[in-house]
Amino acid sequence: MKFEHISELGRLERNLEENTAFQRESVLAILKKVREQGDAALFELTETFDGVCLGSLEVKAQEIEDAYDELGEEMIAVIREAAANIREYHEKQKRHSWFFTRDDGTMLGQQVTPLDSVGIYVPGGTAAYPSSVLMGAIPAQVAGVERIVLVSPPGKDEKLPAAVLVAANEAGVKHMFKVGGAQAVGALAYGTETIPKVDKITGPGNIYVALAKREVFGLVDIDMIAGPSEIAVLADETANARYIAADLLSQAEHDPRSAAILVTTSEKLGCDVIDEVKSQLDSLPRKEIAMEAIASYGAVYIVDTMEEGIEAINRIAPEHLEIMTEDPMSLLGKIRHAGAIFLGEYSSEPVGDYFAGSNHVLPTSGTARFSSPLNVDDFMKKSSVIRYSKQAMLENGRKISAFARLEGLEAHARAIDVRLEGKP
Amino acid sequence: MKFEHISELGRLERNLEENTAFQRESVLAILKKVREQGDAALFELTETFDGVCLGSLEVKAQEIEDAYDELGEEMIAVIREAAANIREYHEKQKRHSWFFTRDDGTMLGQQVTPLDSVGIYVPGGTAAYPSSVLMGAIPAQVAGVERIVLVSPPGKDEKLPAAVLVAANEAGVKHMFKVGGAQAVGALAYGTETIPKVDKITGPGNIYVALAKREVFGLVDIDMIAGPSEIAVLADETANARYIAADLLSQAEHDPRSAAILVTTSEKLGCDVIDEVKSQLDSLPRKEIAMEAIASYGAVYIVDTMEEGIEAINRIAPEHLEIMTEDPMSLLGKIRHAGAIFLGEYSSEPVGDYFAGSNHVLPTSGTARFSSPLNVDDFMKKSSVIRYSKQAMLENGRKISAFARLEGLEAHARAIDVRLEGKP
Repeated sequence: MKFEHISELGRLERNLEENTAFQRESVLAILKKVREQGDAALFELTETFDGVCLGSLEVKAQEIEDAYDELGEEMIAVIREAAANIREYHEKQKRHSWFFTRDDGTMLGQQVTPLDSVGIYVPGGTAAYPSSVLMGAIPAQVAGVERIVLVSPPGKDEKLPAAVLVAANEAGVKHMFKVGGAQAVGALAYGTETIPKVDKITGPGNIYVALAKREVFGLVDIDMIAGPSEIAVLADETANARYIAADLLSQAEHDPRSAAILVTTSEKLGCDVIDEVKSQLDSLPRKEIAMEAIASYGAVYIVDTMEEGIEAINRIAPEHLEIMTEDPMSLLGKIRHAGAIFLGEYSSEPVGDYFAGSNHVLPTSGTARFSSPLNVDDFMKKSSVIRYSKQAMLENGRKISAFARLEGLEAHARAIDVRLEGKP
Repeated sequence: MKFEHISELGRLERNLEENTAFQRESVLAILKKVREQGDAALFELTETFDGVCLGSLEVKAQEIEDAYDELGEEMIAVIREAAANIREYHEKQKRHSWFFTRDDGTMLGQQVTPLDSVGIYVPGGTAAYPSSVLMGAIPAQVAGVERIVLVSPPGKDEKLPAAVLVAANEAGVKHMFKVGGAQAVGALAYGTETIPKVDKITGPGNIYVALAKREVFGLVDIDMIAGPSEIAVLADETANARYIAADLLSQAEHDPRSAAILVTTSEKLGCDVIDEVKSQLDSLPRKEIAMEAIASYGAVYIVDTMEEGIEAINRIAPEHLEIMTEDPMSLLGKIRHAGAIFLGEYSSEPVGDYFAGSNHVLPTSGTARFSSPLNVDDFMKKSSVIRYSKQAMLENGRKISAFARLEGLEAHARAIDVRLEGKP
């Protein structure tokens, strides 16, 4: 963990695509295979990569019932309450079609409509991520997307984790398939006999999934290409070192490339946090990962003033920002770039990861400069609506055709002229 | 121009990236050169590609003054009125930060902020496109973007067209540079001694510009990769064939790959439109382009019912849709996918291209299934704001840590546990 004055602040860009030429070749081959062979390719690739010979790609109703039995009532209740919170927060985002009129009879507006269909990728592997299912599917459901398709790689038992199936069912997902990796992305982008083609693919995955999403972008829409995760804590001398250390470690346990940064006006706090990180790290099950992350991308920066600290945060544009100062709310207006902003000592990052209701799919690696958390707008689109009246045409037609001729587009001008001439 | 029953409806995907391997190599080399050599590369590449040896990259105040003199009062007034209309429409889109609270003291919301800086690419070549300047810069200005940087390739006279400079100035652009092509995209993405790095690059361009934007995506944000343009007209027997033909041709004159499609319940109207297209085509200055477009991608589809026509439109997901039926407004709610929807016979597409106020940067080639017209949201971003109270933590903490442990993320669970234990 570095301990430095803020002038040493580096950039946090950890590029997704360093040295990925080999993986890209492989992804292109997989996509081609899926496009050409459909389901057959999915069965074959699932056997190759997941080591499972599937009887069926689709998750059956019985499997979902079994998942409820397996998960148990306590966790089902937690997932339901989290889902309700997430739904509440996302419902508030929903936009409506709108219009305005002008005196001359013109009507202009935007018609806001949901996407027809989206695919949600849920990573598999050693762990189950039901929270990611909720975060991906609920905004789509709130937007009004009719067909939400979930894909996730099966375990050795040919199943998806119980918690994933329960979360998907609670989020209203009706179509779930046992396929992962680049092949799942291909199936969603092109469609197969079993898996319907969708209009947008969202959700995090490994490097193969990320590269596949990038390849099919244009044919379908994608959400962001998620890079490694990060947390920045902005704190003054009133902050609790133990809380901060625990929060930094919660980020560090994700990935050896996760970044965990404290920016503080208090040198004492900085030292205390470093001590706490060391002591808390020791007993973590994912200690190896967290240690590597802290060693590579852990840092404490000391600033002379809070203004300087805020400037540092805006340069980092962190995915997660926690503000632990005497009066966090007073600093909110100065934060220009951050994915999620957690205010005060009880707003620990995992509160947002799981339960409060905000989305945990956030812009990473400084992309908060220009991107937003996953939200309902990501599953809706707008159409401009233009109703021009005869009066407006007669009053403005000549200006419009003059503008078109200035650009050398005579046919545009004539489309106006024929209207000014009146009907034949 | 094809004349077919609707069952023959093909797909309108005209892929940007067919056979572009050669251009991509060239784009990669240009981007590398700009990244390494900065301004020097821009001067050299402008000499190579635009045949101009520039004295300075930046547009000087005197050049803008001269542009006003050159353009003349009448066109200045038209540009000003168009700008005011565009501003009015886009002001209505502007979103505000919002929050809600819960009984337990939790506060959740979104802080909505503008991007710091954006680059607007304006194509050059044989024509000037001041309307594109307004459509790109005004939404950014309305969003509150502080630094809007315009780039456009200079003409042989070392200048940008007068209309472009006037439009940029009217739209509030303070930084204008004479550079185009992939090198301009590189300059905006990496920054040079003269041209500031931006957070997002928008605006249409040729294949080199499109490929360069795609390459720098991730480092900066980009708007859509624009493909060839299209118009679809949905009409019944009450529609005016002369108007429709003129509108189809206004699209066809853009590009030999532009598509111009009529979907109608009236075979008579279909025949009349084809006759009108033939007769109007003949006297167009851009006749060659329009003829090629009409021959390749012009079509009249006859449908049995209006419902069938609407289904065809939703399958096409056209960039521009004109509805010319007895009661166009009654069909609006059935249109699921279209970039801009023009209602009624006076709502000719050029009305939206230049003057009404809606944006003319629209999703092409069927991407209206998942994309929107350029709008104010494209220049803003959201940060989640989470303020969790002590009460909320005490009431929900155990559920949150249980959820984290379900996912095997112990450090997440402990970040909650330390708060439940209270302060040491």
